[in-house]
Amino acid sequence: MDTIKIFCPATIANVSCGFDVLGLCLESIGDEMIITKTNEKGVRITAITGADLPFETEKNVAGVAALALIEKLQPDYGFEIQIHKKIKAGSGIGSSAASAAGAVFGINYLLDNPLTLKELIPFATEGEKLASGTAHADNVAPALLGGFTLVRSYEPLDVISIKAPEELYASVIHPQIELKTIDARSVLRENISLKKATIQCGNLGGLISGLYTNDYELIGRSLHDELVEPVRSILIPKFKELKAAAKAEGALGGGISGSGPSVFALSKGRETAQKAATAMAAVMQDIGVPFEVHVSPINPTGIKILP
Amino acid sequence: MDTIKIFCPATIANVSCGFDVLGLCLESIGDEMIITKTNEKGVRITAITGADLPFETEKNVAGVAALALIEKLQPDYGFEIQIHKKIKAGSGIGSSAASAAGAVFGINYLLDNPLTLKELIPFATEGEKLASGTAHADNVAPALLGGFTLVRSYEPLDVISIKAPEELYASVIHPQIELKTIDARSVLRENISLKKATIQCGNLGGLISGLYTNDYELIGRSLHDELVEPVRSILIPKFKELKAAAKAEGALGGGISGSGPSVFALSKGRETAQKAATAMAAVMQDIGVPFEVHVSPINPTGIKILP
Repeated sequence: MDTIKIFCPATIANVSCGFDVLGLCLESIGDEMIITKTNEKGVRITAITGADLPFETEKNVAGVAALALIEKLQPDYGFEIQIHKKIKAGSGIGSSAASAAGAVFGINYLLDNPLTLKELIPFATEGEKLASGTAHADNVAPALLGGFTLVRSYEPLDVISIKAPEELYASVIHPQIELKTIDARSVLRENISLKKATIQCGNLGGLISGLYTNDYELIGRSLHDELVEPVRSILIPKFKELKAAAKAEGALGGGISGSGPSVFALSKGRETAQKAATAMAAVMQDIGVPFEVHVSPINPTGIKILP
Repeated sequence: MDTIKIFCPATIANVSCGFDVLGLCLESIGDEMIITKTNEKGVRITAITGADLPFETEKNVAGVAALALIEKLQPDYGFEIQIHKKIKAGSGIGSSAASAAGAVFGINYLLDNPLTLKELIPFATEGEKLASGTAHADNVAPALLGGFTLVRSYEPLDVISIKAPEELYASVIHPQIELKTIDARSVLRENISLKKATIQCGNLGGLISGLYTNDYELIGRSLHDELVEPVRSILIPKFKELKAAAKAEGALGGGISGSGPSVFALSKGRETAQKAATAMAAVMQDIGVPFEVHVSPINPTGIKILP
């Protein structure tokens, strides 16, 4: 096969209590990419729709990730990449990660999968580095692997896949304000109390236990971010009201998606997730900020090959 | 039944990356307690062997826990408690927790179990408060519930039981130096970097994932304490050497048991655990500090009723 068309899913990083370690994969929103093997070596971005992104390979997230992988694999071929964005840049649901993950997935596939999906993560994070300044893996890992992912360690990179309970759904609202990852990082406090760290550990442990045991109530009780949400949520209009509205409709809990401005809620069952999304939309409508909402099951497999 | 004889197991709190949230239950070391229902109301400590502990109910860890439970249940009976200590006070393997947990377990049992084991935890922590100044639950919870326990939250108390992989064994060495919990707490830094907290969260998540998936290697990789061990281990002679000796024999990893001075290692299989214990013993023998060693499977059930 010389061409592959793939669906590159949006992702939610952090997932409340899992700052910089947890991520999850969405199913109902994602980009499409078409990657083609060429005799001419190198990587060329040949089409971009849905977003105003650079065509120069070295300035494009997908291009940088592709170059990092090619540097490693030294294939006898080159690659052309078409990027059809559906995930808005700066939305906080892994737009750049989808492109970076898609590029390495596609190239690896066209080379008969010399690397495993986990082994692709560090190359995709090279793309992330271009987008956000840090090579974080909490969006590219769930985009590649599906389900929930835990970055146990960065040095060395050690990513654990965790299956999501089947009835777990995410509701996401994206208030269309500009909030750069770099700005969202700058509000974080460099030091925190040991007590708060302990509370965070308890909740992270609870969330992971809930995922393994399909205990939705425990997942809900654990969706509490002691470290980042208190400071970062100030940058998101009506954050508290959004979260409260979702919970009032039966959502298990929620938080900031990645570094924002998107806000997510998790629910048991599609119906509750839909109600939570509608309630969050009403809050945003009230203040007149344009927004998008998404309701999605947790995507169990990550990037998919399209016919 | 008017009398119950129970085995009250030793426990390891913190378990490296689980500072103040994780604990595990041991099987091969523990106290014995005999609790008897009496017509005379109140709680009396009628026998103590193996340790020099106060007989006055209000000054005895088991007595205080018993009184807290009786205050709640208001039974028509009183109770006599015999405590036969095998776990050394100040060893860091939950000596006071065993007594506190045993007292509330026994009384609850003799009253036909009006409370669940989880519901007993807060009464047992009242005893812990007397011993260490803080009402921590990370020893009493595993003593009562067995296996691993995660204290997801203290306010409100929310404890999660996690089954241990069947071949997981603990090796414990107790260097017989005095190290009070209060002193071990005083070396802790009140503030830590967000980066270190994130590393801790990654490892805690990894350890919990490893427990659910019986992934011994992942358990081993996750036994890394970023927050407490670096400062607290200074108080324990030859800490680094103890840990290295256990790992050289194939142990998965280890750390400080509770607030020390005991040091533990976890291994896959009894044979490796025995070798790790022998290697740690050799380190301690070299410096002439008296010590005890224990090798134990993880106790799946906690406190046991003896014939």
